[in-house]
Amino acid sequence: MKTKVKRKKKMRINYSKSGKRGGVEKQLAALAGIIDRSLLEYVSEKKEYPPVIYRAMKYSIFAGGKRLRPAMLLLSAKACGLSFTDAMPAACAVEMIHTYSLIHDDLPAMDDDDMRRGKPTSHRKFGEAVAILAGDALLNRAFETFFRCRFNKRIKPENILASAACLAGASGVNGMIGGQVLDINSENKRISRDALSVLHEKKTGALIKASVVCGAMLAGAGPGALKKFSVYGEKAGLAFQITDDILDVTGDEKKMGKKVNKDAAAFKSTYPAVYGLERSAAMARELTAGACSAMGKTDSNTRALADIALFITGRNF
Amino acid sequence: MKTKVKRKKKMRINYSKSGKRGGVEKQLAALAGIIDRSLLEYVSEKKEYPPVIYRAMKYSIFAGGKRLRPAMLLLSAKACGLSFTDAMPAACAVEMIHTYSLIHDDLPAMDDDDMRRGKPTSHRKFGEAVAILAGDALLNRAFETFFRCRFNKRIKPENILASAACLAGASGVNGMIGGQVLDINSENKRISRDALSVLHEKKTGALIKASVVCGAMLAGAGPGALKKFSVYGEKAGLAFQITDDILDVTGDEKKMGKKVNKDAAAFKSTYPAVYGLERSAAMARELTAGACSAMGKTDSNTRALADIALFITGRNF
Repeated sequence: MKTKVKRKKKMRINYSKSGKRGGVEKQLAALAGIIDRSLLEYVSEKKEYPPVIYRAMKYSIFAGGKRLRPAMLLLSAKACGLSFTDAMPAACAVEMIHTYSLIHDDLPAMDDDDMRRGKPTSHRKFGEAVAILAGDALLNRAFETFFRCRFNKRIKPENILASAACLAGASGVNGMIGGQVLDINSENKRISRDALSVLHEKKTGALIKASVVCGAMLAGAGPGALKKFSVYGEKAGLAFQITDDILDVTGDEKKMGKKVNKDAAAFKSTYPAVYGLERSAAMARELTAGACSAMGKTDSNTRALADIALFITGRNF
Repeated sequence: MKTKVKRKKKMRINYSKSGKRGGVEKQLAALAGIIDRSLLEYVSEKKEYPPVIYRAMKYSIFAGGKRLRPAMLLLSAKACGLSFTDAMPAACAVEMIHTYSLIHDDLPAMDDDDMRRGKPTSHRKFGEAVAILAGDALLNRAFETFFRCRFNKRIKPENILASAACLAGASGVNGMIGGQVLDINSENKRISRDALSVLHEKKTGALIKASVVCGAMLAGAGPGALKKFSVYGEKAGLAFQITDDILDVTGDEKKMGKKVNKDAAAFKSTYPAVYGLERSAAMARELTAGACSAMGKTDSNTRALADIALFITGRNF
């Protein structure tokens, strides 16, 4: 019991009250610190056997992710009444799902990427078989981790189930996986504007939106609050993907830790390819403004979420 | 409401009271029939978009599985007080996890199999990228499906969480995935008897054991009953794998729908390779007897489970 109280204290971080770039970067770094500590705990075992699969899981989990999605989940859960400690298993589950999707996306049969965040991709480091299984293992471990919430008396079992179901839906075939299939199918094709928006909504948007909504659901938020977080998540998620597309054209390879101009080389359908760079940037800004306005400035957590949306569009990596 | 009552009625099947081979095969076929109907419902959507991923999911789900695992889950749940209808989402979740693991196991980077149950494997039919994603999609859909139990007032949310956590643990890195890694690592090596038993316990045993235990957990069974189902599941699971190993040496390629002598060709560590055929068969029989005695003959459902254990060791496919 003593340890728990101690840990809870450690998880308290101080927010900057300004919405400035420096402030939000510091906030995110502080959140990433506590998320990383929990991720290490959740992917570790007393007896790590067979060792190679644990090494592969940890390698990708700690390959330099920004922890945007779990940070968003923690903030929305806190805005709705849970502590960071309460929501941490769900937050880490989201990051594990994000990481598994990157491992599988990079495979030779998929995007065939050698580098990710400046490091060799999982299959380049461990071979294809272990990379496939490390991805599978992280998706499984995501749900195992999420279910840890059931030992927490402050969270109602029905809220855990609703929140986990929301996450499974967003990462499944109607969400992220559907987006990945559309992405593969759109290569070398000119797709319609509607199809492009569906692709992005599913591929990146669904998991970002779910991160925010899952936090609120876990805390048992009512329909009004859920709607607010849902609008925020949807707009911020799409703004994130448009910015990603823009950075693939204009970004610095070194800062991003991956090849740029990959999308054009693969003839992928992106916002800049369909709308042009300028119009794409304007769309991202408009979506960000919408996300911020959905959050309002009611408390430090929703303010932090609005800051993150601004940060997403303004980033250069 | 009317539809539900109707469906529940349809799900009632008549058991044969004999433990004879014909009886258990009929029972399994009847259970497979109701499981198939639900599986089709759970992997279908009103709007199946993108269509190829749904085609790939359904192709592997309906490639001729015997539905042993979900049948075991339904029977243990019913023995502990739930109806087949109540336990069906959990049963179908187990089958989806089993199917996803087969799709990924068959991939070129893993076992590199062209045929499964007499049909081309998923990557031979749809290409590697779609096969990887169809596996991912089924693992995701498994949890989405399991969470459907939350709409059932007869199942306590905490029982759903405990049961789903048990399944996630068994299919994860400490269970099935760990076993797959050990399997890959054991190729071309002579492994110890202990290592062989751990490999099989994880690779096949864990999911079979979990199927039985999850059903009991979902029904809120007490520690005594859980222990009983756990012993049964462990022994039946290992007997299943030893029989699989034996059939790889002695089986009929046509009946099994896959190549035989694959293990020896890949220098895999199997029971016949380590203990010889005769001793392996004796071990399988001994485990089956243990599984049957754990079940006792208290009701028609536990009797059916005992019959399934006998059937597993006696099958020739």
